[in-house]
Amino acid sequence: MTHGTDTSDRGRVLAARVESFVREVIIPHERDPRCGPHGPSEEFVHEMRGWARDAGLLTPHILADGSHLTHRETALVLRAAGLSPLGPVALNVAAPDEGNMFLLGRVASQDQKARFLQPLINGSKRSAFFMTEPAGEGGAGSDPSMLKTTARRDGDYWIVNGRKAFITGARGAGVGIVMARSEEGATLFLVDLPDPAIHIERILDTIDSSMPGGHAVVRIENLRVPASQVLGESGAGFKYAQVRLAPARLTHCMRWLGACVRAQQIASEYAVKRQAFGKPLIEHEGVGFMLADNRIEMKQAELMIDWCADVLDSGAAGTVESSMTKVAVSEALFRVADRCVQVMGGTGVSGDTVVEQVFREIRAFRIYDGPTEVHKWSLAKKIRDEALKAAGGVMSR
Amino acid sequence: MTHGTDTSDRGRVLAARVESFVREVIIPHERDPRCGPHGPSEEFVHEMRGWARDAGLLTPHILADGSHLTHRETALVLRAAGLSPLGPVALNVAAPDEGNMFLLGRVASQDQKARFLQPLINGSKRSAFFMTEPAGEGGAGSDPSMLKTTARRDGDYWIVNGRKAFITGARGAGVGIVMARSEEGATLFLVDLPDPAIHIERILDTIDSSMPGGHAVVRIENLRVPASQVLGESGAGFKYAQVRLAPARLTHCMRWLGACVRAQQIASEYAVKRQAFGKPLIEHEGVGFMLADNRIEMKQAELMIDWCADVLDSGAAGTVESSMTKVAVSEALFRVADRCVQVMGGTGVSGDTVVEQVFREIRAFRIYDGPTEVHKWSLAKKIRDEALKAAGGVMSR
Amino acid sequence: MTHGTDTSDRGRVLAARVESFVREVIIPHERDPRCGPHGPSEEFVHEMRGWARDAGLLTPHILADGSHLTHRETALVLRAAGLSPLGPVALNVAAPDEGNMFLLGRVASQDQKARFLQPLINGSKRSAFFMTEPAGEGGAGSDPSMLKTTARRDGDYWIVNGRKAFITGARGAGVGIVMARSEEGATLFLVDLPDPAIHIERILDTIDSSMPGGHAVVRIENLRVPASQVLGESGAGFKYAQVRLAPARLTHCMRWLGACVRAQQIASEYAVKRQAFGKPLIEHEGVGFMLADNRIEMKQAELMIDWCADVLDSGAAGTVESSMTKVAVSEALFRVADRCVQVMGGTGVSGDTVVEQVFREIRAFRIYDGPTEVHKWSLAKKIRDEALKAAGGVMSR
Amino acid sequence: MTHGTDTSDRGRVLAARVESFVREVIIPHERDPRCGPHGPSEEFVHEMRGWARDAGLLTPHILADGSHLTHRETALVLRAAGLSPLGPVALNVAAPDEGNMFLLGRVASQDQKARFLQPLINGSKRSAFFMTEPAGEGGAGSDPSMLKTTARRDGDYWIVNGRKAFITGARGAGVGIVMARSEEGATLFLVDLPDPAIHIERILDTIDSSMPGGHAVVRIENLRVPASQVLGESGAGFKYAQVRLAPARLTHCMRWLGACVRAQQIASEYAVKRQAFGKPLIEHEGVGFMLADNRIEMKQAELMIDWCADVLDSGAAGTVESSMTKVAVSEALFRVADRCVQVMGGTGVSGDTVVEQVFREIRAFRIYDGPTEVHKWSLAKKIRDEALKAAGGVMSR
Repeated sequence: MTHGTDTSDRGRVLAARVESFVREVIIPHERDPRCGPHGPSEEFVHEMRGWARDAGLLTPHILADGSHLTHRETALVLRAAGLSPLGPVALNVAAPDEGNMFLLGRVASQDQKARFLQPLINGSKRSAFFMTEPAGEGGAGSDPSMLKTTARRDGDYWIVNGRKAFITGARGAGVGIVMARSEEGATLFLVDLPDPAIHIERILDTIDSSMPGGHAVVRIENLRVPASQVLGESGAGFKYAQVRLAPARLTHCMRWLGACVRAQQIASEYAVKRQAFGKPLIEHEGVGFMLADNRIEMKQAELMIDWCADVLDSGAAGTVESSMTKVAVSEALFRVADRCVQVMGGTGVSGDTVVEQVFREIRAFRIYDGPTEVHKWSLAKKIRDEALKAAGGVMSR
Repeated sequence: MTHGTDTSDRGRVLAARVESFVREVIIPHERDPRCGPHGPSEEFVHEMRGWARDAGLLTPHILADGSHLTHRETALVLRAAGLSPLGPVALNVAAPDEGNMFLLGRVASQDQKARFLQPLINGSKRSAFFMTEPAGEGGAGSDPSMLKTTARRDGDYWIVNGRKAFITGARGAGVGIVMARSEEGATLFLVDLPDPAIHIERILDTIDSSMPGGHAVVRIENLRVPASQVLGESGAGFKYAQVRLAPARLTHCMRWLGACVRAQQIASEYAVKRQAFGKPLIEHEGVGFMLADNRIEMKQAELMIDWCADVLDSGAAGTVESSMTKVAVSEALFRVADRCVQVMGGTGVSGDTVVEQVFREIRAFRIYDGPTEVHKWSLAKKIRDEALKAAGGVMSR
Repeated sequence: MTHGTDTSDRGRVLAARVESFVREVIIPHERDPRCGPHGPSEEFVHEMRGWARDAGLLTPHILADGSHLTHRETALVLRAAGLSPLGPVALNVAAPDEGNMFLLGRVASQDQKARFLQPLINGSKRSAFFMTEPAGEGGAGSDPSMLKTTARRDGDYWIVNGRKAFITGARGAGVGIVMARSEEGATLFLVDLPDPAIHIERILDTIDSSMPGGHAVVRIENLRVPASQVLGESGAGFKYAQVRLAPARLTHCMRWLGACVRAQQIASEYAVKRQAFGKPLIEHEGVGFMLADNRIEMKQAELMIDWCADVLDSGAAGTVESSMTKVAVSEALFRVADRCVQVMGGTGVSGDTVVEQVFREIRAFRIYDGPTEVHKWSLAKKIRDEALKAAGGVMSR
Repeated sequence: MTHGTDTSDRGRVLAARVESFVREVIIPHERDPRCGPHGPSEEFVHEMRGWARDAGLLTPHILADGSHLTHRETALVLRAAGLSPLGPVALNVAAPDEGNMFLLGRVASQDQKARFLQPLINGSKRSAFFMTEPAGEGGAGSDPSMLKTTARRDGDYWIVNGRKAFITGARGAGVGIVMARSEEGATLFLVDLPDPAIHIERILDTIDSSMPGGHAVVRIENLRVPASQVLGESGAGFKYAQVRLAPARLTHCMRWLGACVRAQQIASEYAVKRQAFGKPLIEHEGVGFMLADNRIEMKQAELMIDWCADVLDSGAAGTVESSMTKVAVSEALFRVADRCVQVMGGTGVSGDTVVEQVFREIRAFRIYDGPTEVHKWSLAKKIRDEALKAAGGVMSR
């Protein structure tokens, strides 16, 4: 409504193509036995990406000249991709690759782009972002002083040592971005994977199951990285992580909104066809109201995403806005998915439809990229600071 | 963000002037003893409107040529007006006048406009909309067959008989719009008030207290109306009511969002200044998280309002969109107001700040203009119809 | 079910008599014009107590020998009393008198009982508990170091100075219990009221309206109290306040549960009689489910109250249990009252039934006697301490 | 508190022994690789039951003389068993066996008991209850006219044909109870399993994973059952199902409450040990309040269970009470489990502790044994009938 420009037609046209592709090509393969508890196999990912490439839809948010769609356009495209839990991986717009490509596009040197970004864009490799440490999200993830992985100079090389946890997609990845603490502070290193110095200790069994490679616990022992593979400048790692952070949160919201659109559609059709106590389920207000609540909450999620996308498109960092959006959208979509499950009764908790998986994935989403409580904590601090400032003047009545 | 045009600058500039006026001129009078349980007195309303007129801000949403601001611009202006429960009345953008002016602007003849609309626009009279009947919202409000007030022709006149309930502002109004059932169906009549045939039986004691005249129970006995005072055509009353309905719902949302912005501001400053257990209240996450939730929910309310306003500005009826927005915004703002009360403890449930009143008003708002459940009921029907249609094809997996 | 003894038959028989009295004698007077925003007038209270005395039901929880019903029996009786917001005052089981009588019964000397307790028991006087200070609940209410009202010895007298806020029933009370800080610590003083040294600055306008005298802000200037009027020992004031605290919280729960039983009854009958969209309201699941939720939540409230009563009857202090019960019951009853309002639409937010008042009263109850958040804060500390202790051993898997 | 008798000492002593057994013997085996997505393997079940038998704790709720513990005592024992998801199976108090044993104990003939009940009590066989049909819970589960599986007489035999869904534990069971529609109405048949006429079409992939054999879709083709294997009388199947229903719902509540006690313990210890933003997680109110909410909701769950157990122990059918309890407890425990997950962040959604499984199991519990909405629907009908009856008299004010 608010955009009538060529630009957004571009987004809409692309999103429509992506939706057709996901519905016609990907969804029929959702039960492929190569989808396991730690996500689709590398072989299956490769196969799906081939289909996307043939359809001219691989990595659709990055244009031939290396420029990206606007965040607002991306919202349309990624929502369409998210209609299947396999869609983002098939189209190469999934986490963590999408965020990693965004980061490298902003910060990497031309040589680094050629070597590490290009294979991600053409979908031949996957990547992983080695930031979180076993001490937890609240640990190294957000507090430089808690980052325990170290990097020390050794001539033209860096030697990295430490442990990492919840490293999504590490197993099977071809490109790694590793955060470690140097003398100058947090620093990001680009590495080829696999590397014998990066031991995957185990893959966590998690409630979600859409991400190839799952989530790994990793030990880094004397990883040797040439100085040319430092991303940007040593000590600026947190600044770069911030560049990646807000958009990555937001694309998560986009994809899972798509998944909920699908779940709602499945639940609605189920409720139309199934009878209970003498009439179709959907004629029961107890069911109809749940679907109505979903409709409203999904619209709100869409509006929050578009709002935050506009903020990012304006060039702002969007830290607060993406926190607000992540909290609102992840919590709302969890309620949406939960209601879809409930509407469908026994079928809802079974793998007979994708609704059950969507519910599990979104449960995890309330924690990944910062649990709801961490975002509220930051937001509360901001409100405090504003109120303190305002209270410097005359108190409101 | 999404509008950079002259048009919306117009809205922003006007809203800024309204905000200053409300904060500087109106808020200092919130404790005027002429504010009673059934709203501010007529004298006080008149006085405040004089101030608004002097500031060039009376009826700010209707321009000199009779045209209106866009709904999107109106959202900015009415939110600013709503910063005080007295603001909308002072500025002449309150319910039911705002909706009545909108309706008359769309449907009334030139003669009718001169006689009934003009005094509303210049703020010299107030108006009331006589639709709801004692049988309840779910009765005459939404179902023509349940409309019991009758209108029969008597030469060039109509004779109207019936009872009405929850008629906001009837006492003290100068203009009435009365819905009755003629042979052709629901019909709207314009009448001068007071009229001896329209007996105000009593003013209801209600939890809210912002609307002048309160909410009346009314008996209409042999009200005699000239045929020239039929609004539009006989039998088309429900169609016209729909014209009024969606925008009226939406302006309610705008005004009460403004009230919550104020409540949040008061609660935040309170939480900064008050200590509990050794630190300012706002340093307690139990308090800070409530204010953070409020921040998020008010942003969502704003986005829903803007979205629905865009729909109305596009020329669509917006029935579904305004239902969704009314449910989402009224329920969210209630949670917001409730949290503001809670943050402020004993002070929150006292009249020492306006927060207590905002809480009461918004409790009523969840019911006025259609309780949440009625809107969900309609929405569920729509979802059913769409799902039935979709299920005509292949079922989703 | 769990009690088949004579003792509880005593409670049941008495509760049945109280219920009849409230329904037949008190409820018909709920619209008495002497009920204002600051509660029923003294004259009306006196009149109602006369009726209760005649029925042999005044102060029913205290027996002729000065002993009290068990807390479990009291639960039955006070729930019956609470069926009307006027019931507890009429029967002399309302806050703060009920808690004050409990405290004096436990701590006062024989002389003090004769002079200060007896007139409370026979209902000829009301009382007030002067603890909270303007700095707020979180202030003097819970932290001795924040108690600012002072008491200094002057021969055989004490001189008390300070300010108090939210002093329920202070206006019109004949007996006061004043907390002040002496050299030994918090101390309670018994005083006759009115006393020129205790100035009632103003009565707060609050959302609730059931308590005679309302809630006062009070200034104490050179109040002179004989040493014989110290309650218990100087410095032990907080210990005594604790004696009063847990039972007083619990009787609040009992009374308001009764009020919700009544609201649910009114809403259910309304929903049976009113039609919407072609059938009685109650046939709509959107309404029926709300009433079902209420039924469940009121049962849970009853069980929590009985559980906590059993704890108190066992002789335990019940601090944690009464906190848990207060939180659970006040929050649940608020949802119950809110749903009753919503079921009844416009009528629900009007004073045409007592439901609207019950909603307002229970909103305040979530704050009075410690806001929900303060109780959760204490409970969280307890959980932390237990977990720390447990974690001293082997961690749970 | 309310029971001081020998009887309940019996329950407490037994519960303490069960708790020790579960904590010391079962919990260390929770990661046994024989626990798969469709529950522990038959071999592992057999092995665990051997340990329980050695400890004298197999089938602890049924005494040597065939009598059962009271429901109230059972609550203590099953809560202890539920501390591990493996506990109920190990101790032979899991669904559906526990309910099936209860039913057979009430209805089976001596011969039937010897043949079908005894092997269940001694834990050598498992059982399944074949009631639900693919049309869904709302179908055959609750409406005889929708029961599609047929039973027709053929001499001294019955021939049963139909399809069943969500048949928990069917694969691997040795005893089946099959519901089918005969001329007289719903009828229950006892059968030895496996039987070639009962084809297990597939095991559903469900979100839960604690029940051996998982949940099966089953086709019954010309199953031949001797007349002596009719349970009770032909046509009385629904009456018997009701006998089983209320207690079976309640034992589910007991077991899952135990699981939440465990999850809360794990989450609390985690929150004590993990740091975020400079202090232990549990010192953050955002975390501490969640644990406090859990404490309160688990107490309420316990009280509802005990109340309903008392109702059943009094000999009443407890249909309404067990519906209320099932709704309240399953919804509350889901919130509890969800909060435990959230408190633990990434670890909470991983299989590193049992919390993630508890969350998944309880999600399913909100649907199994009747989704929340079906119970509210029944309860709403009951409230309507009571209100109709009450409204026959004078309306409440």
